[in-house]
Amino acid sequence: MVSKDELQRFFDAEFPHSRFDIESLGERMAVIRKHITGAHLRPGGTVSGPVLMEVADAALYVALLGTLGLVALAVTTNLNINFMRKPRADRDVIAECRLLKVGKTMVIGEVSLYSDGEPEPVAHATGTYAIPPVR
Amino acid sequence: MVSKDELQRFFDAEFPHSRFDIESLGERMAVIRKHITGAHLRPGGTVSGPVLMEVADAALYVALLGTLGLVALAVTTNLNINFMRKPRADRDVIAECRLLKVGKTMVIGEVSLYSDGEPEPVAHATGTYAIPPVR
Amino acid sequence: MVSKDELQRFFDAEFPHSRFDIESLGERMAVIRKHITGAHLRPGGTVSGPVLMEVADAALYVALLGTLGLVALAVTTNLNINFMRKPRADRDVIAECRLLKVGKTMVIGEVSLYSDGEPEPVAHATGTYAIPPVR
Amino acid sequence: MVSKDELQRFFDAEFPHSRFDIESLGERMAVIRKHITGAHLRPGGTVSGPVLMEVADAALYVALLGTLGLVALAVTTNLNINFMRKPRADRDVIAECRLLKVGKTMVIGEVSLYSDGEPEPVAHATGTYAIPPVR
Repeated sequence: MVSKDELQRFFDAEFPHSRFDIESLGERMAVIRKHITGAHLRPGGTVSGPVLMEVADAALYVALLGTLGLVALAVTTNLNINFMRKPRADRDVIAECRLLKVGKTMVIGEVSLYSDGEPEPVAHATGTYAIPPVR
Repeated sequence: MVSKDELQRFFDAEFPHSRFDIESLGERMAVIRKHITGAHLRPGGTVSGPVLMEVADAALYVALLGTLGLVALAVTTNLNINFMRKPRADRDVIAECRLLKVGKTMVIGEVSLYSDGEPEPVAHATGTYAIPPVR
Repeated sequence: MVSKDELQRFFDAEFPHSRFDIESLGERMAVIRKHITGAHLRPGGTVSGPVLMEVADAALYVALLGTLGLVALAVTTNLNINFMRKPRADRDVIAECRLLKVGKTMVIGEVSLYSDGEPEPVAHATGTYAIPPVR
Repeated sequence: MVSKDELQRFFDAEFPHSRFDIESLGERMAVIRKHITGAHLRPGGTVSGPVLMEVADAALYVALLGTLGLVALAVTTNLNINFMRKPRADRDVIAECRLLKVGKTMVIGEVSLYSDGEPEPVAHATGTYAIPPVR
């Protein structure tokens, strides 16, 4: 299994635009932290929906790569997200991902998103990644 | 009904981070264009999923405001997106939104996303906005 | 391409519990009709949500088989449905399906559901079928 | 809070067509059991997708009523379901629901569906119920 530090280096190198920190990594699970700045806020002083979607998608990808190793290619095919509470503008976003199915060609997982330190999730997502066959 | 130019100015002022152009605006529909640059790409030379989600969410919001006027507040409560084809790195993303329900407290719509000039959609989204009651 | 009558016979034989009529069938599209009886209603005199989900799923399957032929096996992997208006208890449900992607291993489509004769949809669904590789 | 027996009687009286047993009921959670018979199977000897959707929807409704009491009316507005494994034809379906948000006008929850006795879920759903304002 790939280590947390290896995976962090992979994302920093390959996805420099979507910075986040991997907080923990385990069999079929991952927790990531997104540092929130003014660029992530929308009017009303809350984290924008697209930032939450991006973090949810990233958490799924981290859990997938942490479980399967650095597979050459995996692409999101479906993401469903429910926005439930207004995220705090002054807190990081924490995404806890748990994989529900790890198949040969398809990985499905769920993600709960929190404002750091708050007990109730701000959003919840379910997503599917497809893993194209090696040719 | 709010005009296309008014709405464009509203977004440029209120959402400066998520730049797009409103191409057309009508009763319960809108088309927006997102100019794609290197910052929107992911490894493999394709537009990243989160960019497509952001454009889908924005297209819904434009159609909603174009239909209801500049309501004080509307928030996304659900977004479901299917990614179907690899978007082209060298083309703008075009999002065509059609509202399916315009209620007093809830607006539901669907969005087809295209690489500009291509016949088949790269993604398709369905989303719900809640309109909080005026107090 | 399989004909409407052939496909109707296939469903009547293979899925006797989920009776519906195929109204039209074309390249990447299908329209089916579900006759509504008392067994499909819920308190308040409206068609139950699960009946609409079943009809949406069936319309996708009809469009898939109509387009690809009677492939041995295809299974739903994701269905997302938004319920928008109260269906009429005294009208059939009409489901109009349009396929958005017809791939080798995956078919994605959308379905608009109506109470027969009404202009506005009662629900809208998006679904994915996986087509397992032939071994 | 309404008791498990009270709620069971409510469903048996109001929803006679969708029989299930409430296994447990708690603050913001519920577990229900659907007895599977030949009528619930599809070709290939597996529980049909629409049956799983119906059970997921019912589990959400049970958890909602168990938490809020027998509110006059609550209607599903969105359901998203991922089908992950083939359910066993010879086992009941068990649905474990956990509510993620209990608001005044909206309740959101997630449901994991199992073939009784199996460790991995056959499907996972997320759903939203709207609670219309009392007039």
